[in-house]
Amino acid sequence: MHFGDRLAGAIQKYGPLCVGLDPHPNSIPAIFGQGLVGVEAFFSAVLQRLGGHCGIIKPQIAFFERYGPEGLAVLARLCAQARDAGLIVLMDAKRGDIGSTASAYASAYLGPDAWVHCDAITVNPYMGMDTLEPFLGMADERDKGVIVLVRTSNPGAADFEELIVEDKPLYQHIADALAPFARERRGLSSGWSSLMVVVGATAPVEARHLRLALPHSPFLVPGYGAQGASAADAVTAAMDGQGVVVNSSRGILFAPGAFEADNAAEWECIFDAALTKARDDLNVAMKMR
Amino acid sequence: MHFGDRLAGAIQKYGPLCVGLDPHPNSIPAIFGQGLVGVEAFFSAVLQRLGGHCGIIKPQIAFFERYGPEGLAVLARLCAQARDAGLIVLMDAKRGDIGSTASAYASAYLGPDAWVHCDAITVNPYMGMDTLEPFLGMADERDKGVIVLVRTSNPGAADFEELIVEDKPLYQHIADALAPFARERRGLSSGWSSLMVVVGATAPVEARHLRLALPHSPFLVPGYGAQGASAADAVTAAMDGQGVVVNSSRGILFAPGAFEADNAAEWECIFDAALTKARDDLNVAMKMR
Repeated sequence: MHFGDRLAGAIQKYGPLCVGLDPHPNSIPAIFGQGLVGVEAFFSAVLQRLGGHCGIIKPQIAFFERYGPEGLAVLARLCAQARDAGLIVLMDAKRGDIGSTASAYASAYLGPDAWVHCDAITVNPYMGMDTLEPFLGMADERDKGVIVLVRTSNPGAADFEELIVEDKPLYQHIADALAPFARERRGLSSGWSSLMVVVGATAPVEARHLRLALPHSPFLVPGYGAQGASAADAVTAAMDGQGVVVNSSRGILFAPGAFEADNAAEWECIFDAALTKARDDLNVAMKMR
Repeated sequence: MHFGDRLAGAIQKYGPLCVGLDPHPNSIPAIFGQGLVGVEAFFSAVLQRLGGHCGIIKPQIAFFERYGPEGLAVLARLCAQARDAGLIVLMDAKRGDIGSTASAYASAYLGPDAWVHCDAITVNPYMGMDTLEPFLGMADERDKGVIVLVRTSNPGAADFEELIVEDKPLYQHIADALAPFARERRGLSSGWSSLMVVVGATAPVEARHLRLALPHSPFLVPGYGAQGASAADAVTAAMDGQGVVVNSSRGILFAPGAFEADNAAEWECIFDAALTKARDDLNVAMKMR
């Protein structure tokens, strides 16, 4: 099924919440074990809790790459578990390079013999549209998605992304360049494109402007929760209860008390409460729009 | 030793040539074997030929990542071999992300328990200066280098990198933002900074402008050879025989006849000739400046 349609189906069923899998060092509850073994046990438990409560996850590959080949092997096993649980996997890798190198990345993550299962991958547009095309081509062939960084949620976004080119910021130029590619990639049943964009929740006014430029692109929204943005800010670019995927990592994974949990039942209780709260807050904010 | 000083030493000894390790699929000579086994045997042979003839290599991680965990394990073994042969390893990874995620990447590649040996890593500046700082901090601690994308060699560089902000292109703004960070990272013996920048050989006029903004930063120059730039264009930003590292991948690895070589001796002969030609062409161009 078309990626935009699949994503819309998950949002309709579970709401816009996406759980980020970010194994920060020294943040895994001790009951799951130490090091990479602990990382795998912890996220395997997280994935088991998500089934039936959340439709989308976003693994941050950097924290797995930190461990080298063994870390990637763990990531591959977790993504296979996520796929089997019916979760949509957005791989946060922020890759970007020219021609044949971009093709190698596209094959690695979206190709028919990719080493890891994912449904879409984040890419960096700085080097130009020719660096995105191999990802788009592979995604089209394989019913996958591509997620382009446009306006990120970090303070440094002001350094270059917001520089004014003629009468509008750089990120708006990137959105305008993406618009025709997004339009021609709309899903037949939902109308949502397989070309997503990253638009930080810390910039709600900018998000509404970007929605005008990219009416068919689902927005992947970081910055909700730990980075300070409210649920209302996070879903500001939603249209008819669709079109936004809101990531929460630390707010759910590292909820107060989770790290110190004495046993699995206690941890599950804390995790479920944090998950339910984030999901419900976002669903209420969606309804209020 | 300070990375800028080490790099200057290698350039003084062998010239500016950097050999790119880009295992394009279906490009490994058959005598080395198939698949990832062939990749490892081929590049191990390449590294053996480089000792005493070239000081710098640039592995393109995408082509190894294509093979997943096993590909990274091969890359780690090749980089260890390169280190033992005295080669400086510039990891072409073009990573870039915020805060703790950038720290994870910095630890993965430049940290004390990095999974792979490298002396510097390429990073993408689009998300802002706060995404570069974790790399710079780790590089400072460990006498490593950071290589920031500024003006790349692909046609798509015109899409965003060259957009005019006020009176100058975006890439020039990035160079200006990097300048104070580069200045404070000069090596004591050579004066060259541990903060490098990527400046494509396909833009020699731009390279001379960027040299004014970044007088202490070694330029990593792609685009020589297969991408059409001449040796003279490639070294246009050199100063007193220093300050540029010129990458050649396909022109050396995939020289005419190399793929079809019937035996190791024949391949070695073709490889050595291509390596010597590139090195000498660049050294002559450096002397003519």
